[in-house]
Amino acid sequence: MTGKTSPGNFFEDFFIGQRLPHAPPRTVTTGDVALYTALFGSRFAISSSDPFARVLGLPAAPLESMLVFHMVFGRTVAEISRNAIANLGYAGVRFGVPVYPGDTLQADSVVIGLKQNTDGKTGVVYVHSTGTNQHGEVMLDFRRWVMVNKRDRTRPAPETIVPQLPARILATDFHVPMTLPSEGYDSARTGDQFLWDDYEVGERIDHVDGMTIEEAEHMLATKLYQNTAKVHFNQHVEREGRFGKRIVYGGHVISLARSLSFSGLANALTVAAIHGGRHAAPTFAGDTVYAWSQVLECESLPGRADIGALRLRTVATKDRACSDFPGHEGGSALDPSVVLDIDWSVLIPRRI
Amino acid sequence: MTGKTSPGNFFEDFFIGQRLPHAPPRTVTTGDVALYTALFGSRFAISSSDPFARVLGLPAAPLESMLVFHMVFGRTVAEISRNAIANLGYAGVRFGVPVYPGDTLQADSVVIGLKQNTDGKTGVVYVHSTGTNQHGEVMLDFRRWVMVNKRDRTRPAPETIVPQLPARILATDFHVPMTLPSEGYDSARTGDQFLWDDYEVGERIDHVDGMTIEEAEHMLATKLYQNTAKVHFNQHVEREGRFGKRIVYGGHVISLARSLSFSGLANALTVAAIHGGRHAAPTFAGDTVYAWSQVLECESLPGRADIGALRLRTVATKDRACSDFPGHEGGSALDPSVVLDIDWSVLIPRRI
Amino acid sequence: MTGKTSPGNFFEDFFIGQRLPHAPPRTVTTGDVALYTALFGSRFAISSSDPFARVLGLPAAPLESMLVFHMVFGRTVAEISRNAIANLGYAGVRFGVPVYPGDTLQADSVVIGLKQNTDGKTGVVYVHSTGTNQHGEVMLDFRRWVMVNKRDRTRPAPETIVPQLPARILATDFHVPMTLPSEGYDSARTGDQFLWDDYEVGERIDHVDGMTIEEAEHMLATKLYQNTAKVHFNQHVEREGRFGKRIVYGGHVISLARSLSFSGLANALTVAAIHGGRHAAPTFAGDTVYAWSQVLECESLPGRADIGALRLRTVATKDRACSDFPGHEGGSALDPSVVLDIDWSVLIPRRI
Repeated sequence: MTGKTSPGNFFEDFFIGQRLPHAPPRTVTTGDVALYTALFGSRFAISSSDPFARVLGLPAAPLESMLVFHMVFGRTVAEISRNAIANLGYAGVRFGVPVYPGDTLQADSVVIGLKQNTDGKTGVVYVHSTGTNQHGEVMLDFRRWVMVNKRDRTRPAPETIVPQLPARILATDFHVPMTLPSEGYDSARTGDQFLWDDYEVGERIDHVDGMTIEEAEHMLATKLYQNTAKVHFNQHVEREGRFGKRIVYGGHVISLARSLSFSGLANALTVAAIHGGRHAAPTFAGDTVYAWSQVLECESLPGRADIGALRLRTVATKDRACSDFPGHEGGSALDPSVVLDIDWSVLIPRRI
Repeated sequence: MTGKTSPGNFFEDFFIGQRLPHAPPRTVTTGDVALYTALFGSRFAISSSDPFARVLGLPAAPLESMLVFHMVFGRTVAEISRNAIANLGYAGVRFGVPVYPGDTLQADSVVIGLKQNTDGKTGVVYVHSTGTNQHGEVMLDFRRWVMVNKRDRTRPAPETIVPQLPARILATDFHVPMTLPSEGYDSARTGDQFLWDDYEVGERIDHVDGMTIEEAEHMLATKLYQNTAKVHFNQHVEREGRFGKRIVYGGHVISLARSLSFSGLANALTVAAIHGGRHAAPTFAGDTVYAWSQVLECESLPGRADIGALRLRTVATKDRACSDFPGHEGGSALDPSVVLDIDWSVLIPRRI
Repeated sequence: MTGKTSPGNFFEDFFIGQRLPHAPPRTVTTGDVALYTALFGSRFAISSSDPFARVLGLPAAPLESMLVFHMVFGRTVAEISRNAIANLGYAGVRFGVPVYPGDTLQADSVVIGLKQNTDGKTGVVYVHSTGTNQHGEVMLDFRRWVMVNKRDRTRPAPETIVPQLPARILATDFHVPMTLPSEGYDSARTGDQFLWDDYEVGERIDHVDGMTIEEAEHMLATKLYQNTAKVHFNQHVEREGRFGKRIVYGGHVISLARSLSFSGLANALTVAAIHGGRHAAPTFAGDTVYAWSQVLECESLPGRADIGALRLRTVATKDRACSDFPGHEGGSALDPSVVLDIDWSVLIPRRI
């Protein structure tokens, strides 16, 4: 009589077009914002100060982009990746309307692809997940794919459907909710003076600082998002697992990288899109995370003289400073210290 | 000249009928709620989403039942259990009006029983504690009894008065503040579809997941409640103590059990009452807590076709999964992994 | 091409009269308050309860004095002490208008002194820092001086200007925003009954309890304040450093001392001024902090029969109880357990 506890979905439980509403809805608050600040030390002025945000035409300081991502992603875990062996990737992550304290978000997914693996024991599930606010406006949508166990290996394979995944979100599709005042952007209180016009394609930026992760910190963060993936919380099980310890939620490293990127990108207001990313290696409590970025593109936005976009490759490492920009160059293997390699676009004011 | 620091009450300082106002009053906020979510990963929709709570006729998402309990309990420590050798038990814990962010709670106790132990060195103090909001409405009341040291062993014993303690709170006395809408309860976003009608007496539910406790986590929680019991915070003293380490506040384990019980009891809106409970063994940082529940009774509530109650026995263990429901059955000894054995009632929607 | 990352100011970058605006502005919230409570277990009624604060004529519970200090101090780090070898001292810390959730603070500094050291490699920079709210009102101002590296040792020394630093803030300059009601102050819910009239010059108070610091706790606190001093966060670098481990932000110990001082000083509403202080030794995770205070002066305030001030010397130790008031008496050396020796004034109701 343990039928009350859901074992989660196995590969054969998914079908193309399946709609998966996620639970529970979540009213986000200034309490969530304070915890996020305490966890990552984030300093972007737009999310730190209500008056600063109002100068940019917003009603209040919006939640940090990655906090929104984690809140939406976290609630998809129960239905999508409870039996996942691996989170294989994500693509086409697009940030929509800003999220403010007091908003209530909900998350929904649709199955857009299925491919059983040749071993017959596992399969890949592709989903399109969407986070909406209490007005039904899209705050975030993204695709991800995970490898999931089959419950019953004798079940026939479904028709293989591998969806077309966006290689990137086009700048023309970015949601740009803020507007600069007519006198332009005031960077006197933002941490540095560099705007869109000051960055060049190919430029590399060492974000300098490193931040050490504690068990309590990554667990507090991941529980805050109501993400229930077991590998982050249960030392009793993980002691016997592959690594002998709990694994830090991959998104934690993205938030650390975004927060560290303040040094060199203080005016990067928000993340507009994540085009793709790779968690190259797991991260554990005790690791110190560093990051660097390279400017891949400086994009102007249609009809917008006030705000542009920078497409960045950001690399995060563990226990290794980034002053020499470790990565893989010229076909060599990826530096073993690399834990994250992400391709994303940020919005940043232009000089007017 | 250390007379400014209260040593707390000793056994001979208590008398029957004594009124003990506790300090300080506490305005609870969405910040407290965010921290509680980060500490326990709680996912009950009614306390996660303001719109969801409004559908149930409440003005906003109420605080989790156990957060209210800890806030009230925490402020009774200074006057009641500062010199306690043992928290012997509690009974008749009844949750009253819901508590919302912005409410201010205060706590008061009355001494209802005294019994000196035969050794003449200690005694048992029984109190009835009440938490009220800024309107004077009762949010929570409960009895507990603690063993307290005497300051002066030569003082004569008081008259022994052992109060009648309620074996349970009757369902007719439950406070049921929420009302289902006429179209019934929508479980699409609550985590599972099981309502009152779906549970059977005797049914056992493994809550599956385990959660590891860190020192920082239990201390943050207990300080949030302004609970000052020294054994939780002072490693310098506890290093020389009975266990060589800090002891986790027993209520922390109750909150973990309640949060884990989401798997299998996602629609258990709130706790209506705690009839009794036993902390069978101490819990320490590094322990991983699991839980299971058995349905003891399915009770209908007078005049309510929309909401019923489940009386549950919930058992929490450390470093042991609960798929085989460890406890004491058939007269055998309690499983040594058990840290909590609690008898409580939750409110849960009925199918209408 | 790492020119986007500021290396911070070196000694030769400072000049007398230089104005340094700090980033970012910060809207403080009840989320910040909840975290501060969870970190320090603070129980002063005025900052715990909105209704209690309103009885004292304030619109809501103000932020704890030291939370305001840390928020202002934290944002001065990037411009003032990024290349500091040592924080040498602070003086004349005066608390101004109270800060409430929803207020937005900003910080500014002016260089008021410069003195190159004889080795030609370093110099001392004196600054006057001010925190203001969204109305331009001063919430806090203070002087501090730090030893900073020179970038280029061949640069000529600036003219030596050592500012006159206030030995103390005079009681006539205290900002006293609260007013007692005509019926006097009600201490029934504040933790103890001792008011200004009950303290005597020379009296010593053991604050009794000890609190152990975890890595996660001091890092959460310091990141909450957006303080970016590297020594607190980066175990990968500090492992090779002088102590082999991360150093706890000195302000963390002040907050612990203030919180512990509740035992014996429960009615000390707020800190009015910090006259001076000394971090006698570094503090690390795992240390248990204790504190005691001595009353240096009982000062009446001009025109105020309702509220007075106590000037206190508060000493905090690590891993040593304070029942015998360790310090340096009669010319002996400072007890090696002492980590903080601070001279400050608190506001406390008078009996009327």
